[in-house]
Amino acid sequence: MAGKSVTTSRRGILRAGLAAGVALPAAALSARAQGGPDPLITEVQDWARYTGEGVDETPYGLPIRFESDVVRRNVPWLTADPISSINFTPIHALDGTITPAGCAFERHHSGAIELAKPDYRLMVNGLVDRPLVFTYEDLERFPRHSGVYFCECAANTGMEWAGAQLNGSQFTHGMIHNMEYVGIPLKTLLDEAGVKPEGKWIYVEGADASSNGRSIPIEKALDDCMVAFKANGEALRKEHGYPARLVVPGWEGNLWVKWLRRIEVTDGPVESREETSKYTDTLADGTSRKWTWVMDAKSVVTAPSPQVPIRHGNGPLVITGLAWSGRGAITRVDVSVDGGKTWKTARLAAPGQPMQMTRFWLDHDWQGEEMLLQSRAMDDTGYVQPTKSALRAIRGENSVYHNNAIQTWWIKQDGSAENVEVS
Amino acid sequence: MAGKSVTTSRRGILRAGLAAGVALPAAALSARAQGGPDPLITEVQDWARYTGEGVDETPYGLPIRFESDVVRRNVPWLTADPISSINFTPIHALDGTITPAGCAFERHHSGAIELAKPDYRLMVNGLVDRPLVFTYEDLERFPRHSGVYFCECAANTGMEWAGAQLNGSQFTHGMIHNMEYVGIPLKTLLDEAGVKPEGKWIYVEGADASSNGRSIPIEKALDDCMVAFKANGEALRKEHGYPARLVVPGWEGNLWVKWLRRIEVTDGPVESREETSKYTDTLADGTSRKWTWVMDAKSVVTAPSPQVPIRHGNGPLVITGLAWSGRGAITRVDVSVDGGKTWKTARLAAPGQPMQMTRFWLDHDWQGEEMLLQSRAMDDTGYVQPTKSALRAIRGENSVYHNNAIQTWWIKQDGSAENVEVS
Repeated sequence: MAGKSVTTSRRGILRAGLAAGVALPAAALSARAQGGPDPLITEVQDWARYTGEGVDETPYGLPIRFESDVVRRNVPWLTADPISSINFTPIHALDGTITPAGCAFERHHSGAIELAKPDYRLMVNGLVDRPLVFTYEDLERFPRHSGVYFCECAANTGMEWAGAQLNGSQFTHGMIHNMEYVGIPLKTLLDEAGVKPEGKWIYVEGADASSNGRSIPIEKALDDCMVAFKANGEALRKEHGYPARLVVPGWEGNLWVKWLRRIEVTDGPVESREETSKYTDTLADGTSRKWTWVMDAKSVVTAPSPQVPIRHGNGPLVITGLAWSGRGAITRVDVSVDGGKTWKTARLAAPGQPMQMTRFWLDHDWQGEEMLLQSRAMDDTGYVQPTKSALRAIRGENSVYHNNAIQTWWIKQDGSAENVEVS
Repeated sequence: MAGKSVTTSRRGILRAGLAAGVALPAAALSARAQGGPDPLITEVQDWARYTGEGVDETPYGLPIRFESDVVRRNVPWLTADPISSINFTPIHALDGTITPAGCAFERHHSGAIELAKPDYRLMVNGLVDRPLVFTYEDLERFPRHSGVYFCECAANTGMEWAGAQLNGSQFTHGMIHNMEYVGIPLKTLLDEAGVKPEGKWIYVEGADASSNGRSIPIEKALDDCMVAFKANGEALRKEHGYPARLVVPGWEGNLWVKWLRRIEVTDGPVESREETSKYTDTLADGTSRKWTWVMDAKSVVTAPSPQVPIRHGNGPLVITGLAWSGRGAITRVDVSVDGGKTWKTARLAAPGQPMQMTRFWLDHDWQGEEMLLQSRAMDDTGYVQPTKSALRAIRGENSVYHNNAIQTWWIKQDGSAENVEVS
C-alpha cells in the first residue's frame, strides 16, 4: 500500500508522499504509484448518473447500512439476567461529544417499560408541606432548563478491576453517554411541595418493577438535579426512561432514576438495596465505601483500540478519546504511547465544561512501532486520573464500582490492539 | 378539567390550584376535585408488575411508538419533483438545541445517494501547487476539529414571502438543523495542496448527479469551513451527505455540499446554476441580490404553534423557540404576545454561541386570551430580526430566499393556533 501511504514532513502533513514520488496530479490523470488513474475520481460513477433515493420514505431515519458496526453491544456473561441488562455505547466508533440516543448505553434492572405520557404520574411526598401528584403535562408547564451532562454507570470499567478483561473500548468504557437534557430543576418541584426543615434527604424511585430506589442528599437535590423529558432534542428513548427521568449531574448513573415515579423527602437515607447490597465497595480492611456518588475524573482512548485497529499504515495517526469528571470540568488530558513513562498534552476539542464529556485528540506520527497507549485526565479540582496500581493500592482488590484508572491499549506493529495492564 | 388546571400565584407556580380547593395530598389518597384517588399513582400498574423488554434486540434504537408525531414531513406541492426533495425538521415538537439526525431536515436535488467509504474520493485541484486526491481514510488522519453549527436552507420560510401560507412551525421554519460536527478544517486540505496567489475562490461540488456546485470566496474557505464526517457523534446520515460533506458555518445550507467530491481553486466565481438561476433574489428595481451567503439572525416560536395547540387550559404556559444567526452569536430574544406592540425578554437556555442555535423560553401566565405570538432575535453585531413589512419594503415582493422576518402565530381562546401576518 506504499502508494497510498501518507507520511509527515515539516512542510506538510502528506507532503512526504510526494517526496517518495507519489504525486497525485489529478488534472493530468497520472498514475498513482501502484498503477493507472483512480477511476473512482476520474470516471463518472453510478451515483452520479442516477437519481438517489427519496427521503420521504424515512420520516425517522436510521444510519446508512455501511455503519452497522456502530451499535450497542452486550457481554452475555456479564450479568445473571436471561436477557442482557447492559448494552454498551460503541464509543470506539464515535467522535465528538454527543452520543446518539439510538446507540447510547442503557442499563436496566427489570426491562425497559412502555409508559405513555397520559399514564405518567410523578408524586412528591414525605416531609413536605403539600404532597403533590404531577401529570406529564404539568411538568411541561414549569420553567425549563437545559444542560449537557454525561451519565456513567458506576460499574463502568468494573470488569477491569480483575485485570485486562474485555477487548474493546466499547466494553471496557461504554457504560456512558453524553446528551443535552431539557427538563425542570428538581428544586422547582420540591419548592412547589415545600420541603420541611427536617427534610434532609430525598428517596427517588421509578415506575418499573425494579423501582431502583436511591437516596440523595437534599443539598444535591436542590442544586442541579433535573427532571428531564428531552434528550438531544427529542423525547427520551424508551430505554432511557421515557417520558421522564432524573438527571443528577456528575453523579452515579444509578441515581438517574428512569420512568421517575416518586420523590419522597425524608430525614435520613432509606438504605435501599441499591445503596447497600449494590453500589458499595469493600476495601482491604473489610470496611466498605458507600455513598460514593461522584464520578471521578476519567478518560479513555477510544481509538485506536481493539475494535479499531490501525489499518492505514505508517504516518499520521489520530489518537482520539473522551474525558469527563463528575467534580467539574476537564482541564487537561495527557496521552502516553509508552505506558506512562512520558506524556504529551492532547488537544481538547473545546474547553472542558462541568460534568459533560470532553473530546481529546493527539496527532501522532506512527512509524509502525509498538505502543502502550494511555490517556490521563485532570479536572479543575486538581484531581488527576490514577494508575490501576495506585487505585488498587487505595481500594483493594474487591471493588466493583468506580474504576477510573488509566486504561492501556497495547498497539502492535501490525496495528492491531489489545487490552493490557502495565505496572 | 378544572381539577387539573394549574394557575400561577406569587408564592408558587401551582399553589393557586390549592387556593381553588384542588389539593392533591397523595399520602392521604384524597380525591381530586373531579373524583376519587388517581389510580395511576395509587395502584400498582402493569409496568411495575412485569419485566419490560430487553434492549439487546435494539442495537440501534428508534423513538418510542408514542412519539410518532416527531418525524420529518414534506409539503407535496412545494417542489416539482415526483418525490419530495425537502423534508422538514419537526421543530414544533423538539426542545433544546441538538437536532436528532433521524428527523433532521434534508434537501436534495437528485436524491440521497449511497456512497460507501471505500468508494469515496475527494479531489483538490485547480490553482494549487499540488493537485491531490484523498480517500476517506486519508481524511481521518488529519488533525480533527469540531463545532456545533446550524445549517439552514436559504429557502427556509421562503413560502411565507407570499403571505402566511403553511400551518405549522415545522413547515414555515423547519429547513434547519443544529448538530455537532467533527471533521477537518478545509484550510488543512487547501494548505496541503498549496493555494496559488491567484487563487481567490473555490468551487465545490458533490458526487451526486446534481453535483450542486457552488463558488465560495477563499477567505471563507480558509476561515472556518470544515470537511465533516461526523454529526452528533456518529457518521453523517446518508441523506446528510455520507461519508463527508462541507460545513460552512453561518452560511446558506446550499453551500454545505453533500457527498463532497471536488474542491477546485479558481481565480473567480464559476457562476453555476446554484448561484445564478437559484439562490438569488430579484428586488423591486429589477436587480438581483446575489452572493447572499450569510444567514441573517432569525428566530421562531416553535410552540405553541399550529401543530402544537395549547391543551392544558389556563395558567402557566411555556413558550419555547429557537434563534440563530450566521453572523455570530444570539445575544437576546424578545417575545411578544400582542403582535409586536410590547416585548418581554425571553430566557436563553445558555449564552448564545457563534453560528449555532440558541433555545429560548418565556414563561407566560395564560388566561385564555387571544395572542399574536412573536419572537425577535438580536445578534452580537447589533442586528435585529425585522418585521415582514420592513423586510418586504427592502427586498420587494419577488424574493425566494432569506426570509428571516418575525413570525406570528395567532393563538385563539381555545388554544389552537394559526399562521397569520400582522402589519
